Amino acid sequence: MKHLGKVIAMMIFIAVAATAGYANFNKAKDAIRYRQAAMTLIGHHFGGMGQIVKEKQPYDKASFAEEAAVLEMLSKIPWDAFLFPESDRGKTKLKPKAFKNKDEFMQAAKMLEDETAKLAADARTGDFKTIKKQFGATAKSCKDCHGEFKSK
Amino acid sequence: MKHLGKVIAMMIFIAVAATAGYANFNKAKDAIRYRQAAMTLIGHHFGGMGQIVKEKQPYDKASFAEEAAVLEMLSKIPWDAFLFPESDRGKTKLKPKAFKNKDEFMQAAKMLEDETAKLAADARTGDFKTIKKQFGATAKSCKDCHGEFKSK
Repeated sequence: MKHLGKVIAMMIFIAVAATAGYANFNKAKDAIRYRQAAMTLIGHHFGGMGQIVKEKQPYDKASFAEEAAVLEMLSKIPWDAFLFPESDRGKTKLKPKAFKNKDEFMQAAKMLEDETAKLAADARTGDFKTIKKQFGATAKSCKDCHGEFKSK
Repeated sequence: MKHLGKVIAMMIFIAVAATAGYANFNKAKDAIRYRQAAMTLIGHHFGGMGQIVKEKQPYDKASFAEEAAVLEMLSKIPWDAFLFPESDRGKTKLKPKAFKNKDEFMQAAKMLEDETAKLAADARTGDFKTIKKQFGATAKSCKDCHGEFKSK
């Protein structure tokens, strides 16, 4: 039973990873607030990991893998909130282009999810050289999406 | 190998659950921003689940369990940020009392974590009556902590 419980917990975790979008919003400003909050957390964790990758902070396999696992989960939750109708207005840097090219936007979001999942997998191996490389690929996916869809 | 990978993924997830606090902050305002972002996400997911528990929205076992799993993860990340030195000043509703009674504060935080973990476990069973009861217990843990440590 104990093992079954753990497997179920794992399956739920994977299910969350697979579905990602179920957050409901009543107003555009709620969606903006939600996605900005998610991005604040993503930025914080990714920034902290960057300090380690740049060797400004010491690398510890276990805690880096934990950070990467949190980041992986966070990378899956913000996207629905980005496509809430008219949420390109108000206090947001989202370009209206995200609505015009919805598929392209979601593809860019999926790229971040995928790169982050790879980073989390690499982090579990503890191979710092591979982690470094994959951190770069993940950073690129952030940058590419911001370049296309975020105002300065 | 595939099974091993899943088990490792699961163990990492559990490790995250067990450690919770590794977020580093340079300034009190960064810690405030982080914890407010985490609370925004927690509030959103918990609020959405509340709509279902109050039967204002339809209950679906799988998606409710996903929401509960996200909430469980989110319940573990904000606490370090609350105890950043002098982060009871500035744009925050945190009472200075949280610093004076740090153990009490962390106990209240742990209560939320535990109740949320129970809610996630109940959500996986799909027993709506039990879920309803545990949702109430989780809501109480929010309220109790806010009552003690959050200004109005």
